[in-house]
Amino acid sequence: MKLMNNRMSLDYLFNPKSIALIGAAHSEEKLGGVILKNLLAFKGKVYPVNPKYSELMGLKAYPSFYDIPDAVDLSIIIRPAPEIPEILREHKGKAKCIIIVSSGFAEVGETELQEEVKNTGKEIGIRILGPNCMGIYNPHRRLDTFFLPHERLKRPKKGNVAVVSQSGAILSCLIGAMRSSNIGVSKVLTYGNAVDINESDLYEYLADDKYTDVVVSYIESVVDGRRFIEKAKRLSGKKPFVLLKSGKSQSGQSAAFSHTGRLAGRYEVFSSIIKQFGIKEADDMDELIDSAKAISFQKKSPHPSFTKGGAGGISDRILIITNGGGSGVLAADECMRQGLEVTELPEDKKERLKKIFPHFYGINNPLDLTAQVNDADYITALNELKDDFDGFLIIALPNVLGITEGLAPLLKKIKDEVKKPLIAHIAESGISKRLTSLFEKAKIPVYPSPERAVRGLKALLSV
Amino acid sequence: MKLMNNRMSLDYLFNPKSIALIGAAHSEEKLGGVILKNLLAFKGKVYPVNPKYSELMGLKAYPSFYDIPDAVDLSIIIRPAPEIPEILREHKGKAKCIIIVSSGFAEVGETELQEEVKNTGKEIGIRILGPNCMGIYNPHRRLDTFFLPHERLKRPKKGNVAVVSQSGAILSCLIGAMRSSNIGVSKVLTYGNAVDINESDLYEYLADDKYTDVVVSYIESVVDGRRFIEKAKRLSGKKPFVLLKSGKSQSGQSAAFSHTGRLAGRYEVFSSIIKQFGIKEADDMDELIDSAKAISFQKKSPHPSFTKGGAGGISDRILIITNGGGSGVLAADECMRQGLEVTELPEDKKERLKKIFPHFYGINNPLDLTAQVNDADYITALNELKDDFDGFLIIALPNVLGITEGLAPLLKKIKDEVKKPLIAHIAESGISKRLTSLFEKAKIPVYPSPERAVRGLKALLSV
Repeated sequence: MKLMNNRMSLDYLFNPKSIALIGAAHSEEKLGGVILKNLLAFKGKVYPVNPKYSELMGLKAYPSFYDIPDAVDLSIIIRPAPEIPEILREHKGKAKCIIIVSSGFAEVGETELQEEVKNTGKEIGIRILGPNCMGIYNPHRRLDTFFLPHERLKRPKKGNVAVVSQSGAILSCLIGAMRSSNIGVSKVLTYGNAVDINESDLYEYLADDKYTDVVVSYIESVVDGRRFIEKAKRLSGKKPFVLLKSGKSQSGQSAAFSHTGRLAGRYEVFSSIIKQFGIKEADDMDELIDSAKAISFQKKSPHPSFTKGGAGGISDRILIITNGGGSGVLAADECMRQGLEVTELPEDKKERLKKIFPHFYGINNPLDLTAQVNDADYITALNELKDDFDGFLIIALPNVLGITEGLAPLLKKIKDEVKKPLIAHIAESGISKRLTSLFEKAKIPVYPSPERAVRGLKALLSV
Repeated sequence: MKLMNNRMSLDYLFNPKSIALIGAAHSEEKLGGVILKNLLAFKGKVYPVNPKYSELMGLKAYPSFYDIPDAVDLSIIIRPAPEIPEILREHKGKAKCIIIVSSGFAEVGETELQEEVKNTGKEIGIRILGPNCMGIYNPHRRLDTFFLPHERLKRPKKGNVAVVSQSGAILSCLIGAMRSSNIGVSKVLTYGNAVDINESDLYEYLADDKYTDVVVSYIESVVDGRRFIEKAKRLSGKKPFVLLKSGKSQSGQSAAFSHTGRLAGRYEVFSSIIKQFGIKEADDMDELIDSAKAISFQKKSPHPSFTKGGAGGISDRILIITNGGGSGVLAADECMRQGLEVTELPEDKKERLKKIFPHFYGINNPLDLTAQVNDADYITALNELKDDFDGFLIIALPNVLGITEGLAPLLKKIKDEVKKPLIAHIAESGISKRLTSLFEKAKIPVYPSPERAVRGLKALLSV
């Protein structure tokens, strides 16, 4: 019953048909104006509320929420904190879900006011996201409640990664990084002070969300540890889930407290529990993004295991194919640190490749195609060795003329045949931007260093 | 005497007045053509050698090295490996230094041929760089012997970072990353198989090079461990020096062997010796670049210590000023991991800032200016707290309208007054590219994540 209720109310949050915006403004100089502007793209009905205007950005405006003639699925409130309890009461029976964007609650010591908001929410029987949050971005519904203008923060495209963040700042950093990493998103949101809807509710919903194949989440603290573990574990069992927990240090913990008004708890305890339940924890922002990218590009949900190749049955055997010796060595080093095996090539394959390739190629693992490389060499090697490894790292340093844009379609074709994780490192150089874009269109994730590529591969092999 | 000789011969390598190119070609489809094209920008005399042409790219060409009428400071050879010993003999008494670009020696099992090259070098009494290397890039002399076209690999601008790499591939990756990170270079080179000039010779030279304030080096193996330690230690004592050693894993070690024909040795032993002598080792490519950037931007050689502030005398106290709470928390976490202290604000300053700033700002460390931030807030905070900390991390998430390009000149001014490490994290967003460029022109290094910024600060505080 609880589960059903949670799913239904969150459906109104993620997929509303009508929206009220209380605190709508006439210009983008005000946050309420930015939100209204972003809501103009929404395909359902939008009711701006502001007593000073009869029209805002081409939409009929209402003096108060009372004056809206219909019930709404979602109401977004951006008004000064002290006004919020009264505004909430106006919603009784007339809204399915509420986002309180306003700050000025527990995060600045106003715990009583926050408690009042919480209790009022229970009284009126409506689920609340926030306060002190940015709300939702759901590109599948053209829904965007963020108070950040698109000129300042371009949104990621439609995709399969859900992002759940306690912090709006981190959410905006993640969005920016995802956009520039060509990662598409399904649903993105911050829940701020979480008087009602919290990370656990969201994990529960997203575990069953058909648009979402991967969930990444940034948290500073949890309200109910037991429920968090239960929901995170369930989510983890259904689809890849990567968590970044901050507040690891003393100063980090007190910072997290002052910023959301929730206690972070001892990190070591938290981390060991997470590990015990098989939930993947990222060490830092880069790792969160890098993992999400690999999994988003090559892992489908419900996630079938990739067929592990070879008869020996050792998993996580990595083949590194490179046109730069040193880059291959750095990748092999990182494989070791990540517990991935850079196993020797089978002797018969080695002999065959020695006949095919020029004598100065390094027929080992890493397989060194040298600066004399041609695009087709990667394919030759993959064709020979695809059954002997579980994952493939392609290192293409496009500073030599033998690497061309033609490498992308060749790799796409063989990746679709091989059906195993295959990712790439492309170093910064003349055609690297264009080549990266072509690789990523072919769903081959590209990383800017050999080590980060290996970490991406590790994420893919361990979910 | 040895030192003098080393310095003098390397002077001919880095600052030649005349250059011969044996194996010059008429078009950039050949490596000898790319090198010749790159040498056209060189301000001294260039003698292309190729028996098939009387002129190459507008320069008079010579049938052989014999036919060049003058002695040359530097001769660059790019001819098939078996021809090299004979070509070397032609140089006796007529060149001061030689770069052998050609591959086909120990790295492909041709150890005898390599031995012959080594011995011939001694016979003729001329210092040799290579074989199997890319040579030199010295922007201060417009000298560029790389066989990589500029369209494929843009060179970094003139600056104070020297790069010494055993591997050409890694060198090209470092160059690409440095270019895009706005890091300027003094001298850049690869030494490949190192039959003569090796990392130790180069460290010795660069320790005394007035153009170089920082040295970064990528190595896979060393020939003479004792001498390496001696020279690395001496260099480290004179200016900041950051080392990336690969071949940490078994497979990495054998890959390094096949790629340069030198044995890498046990990494653990190497690493503990390095540490003992106070030489900074980077964990991966990102850390090498991130460290180099911070040090290059804010550390001068011979390096005076930054004045450590405050009376207590605790070093490495970091102040984090942020407009995103979560980003501040992640930075604080990384400070803990890096052994940097995010100490509390002094009580009196705290009281004062509470009076100056809006009540919802978080007056702690991290200092949270929230999404309501204005550029001037950073300066207000720095002015109050500059004497209480040893290093400053500015986190500017430019997704809000309160962060403008005007922040760069404000920070530049106060940085010049404060005279302590001050670095920044700017997240990807609307104006981040432009803002980053303005910060970096003001010599404030910018990093794409809070954690990488902290690692940059750590590098700066520990050299």
